[in-house]
Amino acid sequence: MMDKKLLGIDLGGTTVKFAILTQNGEIQQKWSIDTNILDEGTHIVPDIVESINHHLALYEMKPEQFIGIGMGTPGSVDITEGTVIGAYNLNWKTLQPVKELIEKGTGIPFFIDNDANVAALGERWKGAGENDPDVVFVTLGTGVGGGIVMNGQLLHGVAGCAGEIGHITVDPDGFECTCGKRGCLETVASATGVVRVARQLAEEYAGGSELKARLDNGEDITSKDVFELAAKNDDLALRVVDKVTFYLGLACGNIGNTLNPSAIIIGGGVSAAGEFLRSRVEAYFEQFTFPQVRNSTKIKLAELGNEAGVIGAASLAR
Amino acid sequence: MMDKKLLGIDLGGTTVKFAILTQNGEIQQKWSIDTNILDEGTHIVPDIVESINHHLALYEMKPEQFIGIGMGTPGSVDITEGTVIGAYNLNWKTLQPVKELIEKGTGIPFFIDNDANVAALGERWKGAGENDPDVVFVTLGTGVGGGIVMNGQLLHGVAGCAGEIGHITVDPDGFECTCGKRGCLETVASATGVVRVARQLAEEYAGGSELKARLDNGEDITSKDVFELAAKNDDLALRVVDKVTFYLGLACGNIGNTLNPSAIIIGGGVSAAGEFLRSRVEAYFEQFTFPQVRNSTKIKLAELGNEAGVIGAASLAR
Repeated sequence: MMDKKLLGIDLGGTTVKFAILTQNGEIQQKWSIDTNILDEGTHIVPDIVESINHHLALYEMKPEQFIGIGMGTPGSVDITEGTVIGAYNLNWKTLQPVKELIEKGTGIPFFIDNDANVAALGERWKGAGENDPDVVFVTLGTGVGGGIVMNGQLLHGVAGCAGEIGHITVDPDGFECTCGKRGCLETVASATGVVRVARQLAEEYAGGSELKARLDNGEDITSKDVFELAAKNDDLALRVVDKVTFYLGLACGNIGNTLNPSAIIIGGGVSAAGEFLRSRVEAYFEQFTFPQVRNSTKIKLAELGNEAGVIGAASLAR
Repeated sequence: MMDKKLLGIDLGGTTVKFAILTQNGEIQQKWSIDTNILDEGTHIVPDIVESINHHLALYEMKPEQFIGIGMGTPGSVDITEGTVIGAYNLNWKTLQPVKELIEKGTGIPFFIDNDANVAALGERWKGAGENDPDVVFVTLGTGVGGGIVMNGQLLHGVAGCAGEIGHITVDPDGFECTCGKRGCLETVASATGVVRVARQLAEEYAGGSELKARLDNGEDITSKDVFELAAKNDDLALRVVDKVTFYLGLACGNIGNTLNPSAIIIGGGVSAAGEFLRSRVEAYFEQFTFPQVRNSTKIKLAELGNEAGVIGAASLAR
């Protein structure tokens, strides 16, 4: 029984990552395939089934040797039914009966949740969360997402929107968001949000700055450029980082004041800025939390990188 | 077995309320005693034990007829050890072994949590929460407190501070709070907070207003006065209510964006303003939430009043 395995799948718009793990979360095998989103994404699930069965044959493993398969996916997930709808980067516009098809195709029990929740489970279990019962994960990428584990369980809320940290209002008069409201954290702390803040501050900026010069030249600037210039003491870039980390610290502070997790873990592409980002978020977090939370909730960087998805997905099947 | 009872206790700074309930949460008997905070609160627990034993004798009931006793208390609670410290309105400055003393004195298993959490459990179980799994309770009184139930369980967090909604930062440049930071919800939405906002807005107010006249006269104004004058269309009072409900809507909105509970329930003394308050908080809540949360999380008024405490306390013993 104890040497039964877990299979984790991280379904993304460009690749599908797979891993076979022990029940302790150690990765034993991993592989990936391209995501074929043609024909309204109808190839995706059959490709996943075929790849699993192919690799099980390769490793001379049987379905009975697995406790289950867990998968993280974009889109809106019905975790009970095991269905997905509205995953636009997969071309899944209509309801996809993922659980039914994968269980039928592999003979292994299947569990599913959204990608941000699954990454949260991974970082909580084997990453910066140290397997604590109360951990919040914030991912700063193209958008800003998140997942919340409290009392050792993922929170979903009544309509599955718990953990949508990107839509916390950090500035009632702020930028308009794709969700229709104003001042969402995502409008200032996603990769595009950082650039948006840079353009805004550049307009009223008069001093000397390479960032200012490049923006005025019409160059394409990325959030990575902004953090790199800030690390070189570019004055405008430092102001941008200050504003972005102010909003991140405010949002993390209020998550801390509301939930008091042992850790708020920052991951995703923008978190590549590392300690330079974390220490500044932490400083504002301390300003916006009351003493007992300030002293017990830690701001941490994610540790698992790309593997958070397959590890967290596998943990759904435990 | 099914006709075993629950005993709920709501310990406050002036009275201790008791109730005997069925397992379905129906109150069968209730009584109360004065809280004797003299001699560093050393009489409180013995008085509770004596009152329970007296009433059990009166009703000809035995300890074996109870599943357990649950109690809500001010102060910092160690729910595992059953101890309380730092309950200043009880004069409990040192660690109180409440569970040990009450179990020894009554022979009935004992469970304890803080008063805001216990009220949240009560409103969730038998009040506006309709026994849903995901419910947040906000209490607007002398301070602003709260309790969060997700997946059917109270959230405590790593240091017991989960649900401290009063210290959500709603204005980074706002009033100083007793906790040491700025702009806490409590500084603008507690009973004293409403008056603080009234004094601030009165300073720069030039129009005609009874509230302005009474403040300029040096009269003592309460939050109840502010809401009563606003209901009579006093212009300044309406501005105060607008500002208070803006901050409440912002805080509730971000709780919704983070947790997506089925209901955020507003209780406590300030909520006596009823639908006049609720509808205005709801309007700002809608402004500060993204569509899926706006359509699934409801802003409600508490329904149980004073009984939330004993009912929620009793539910700890279920």
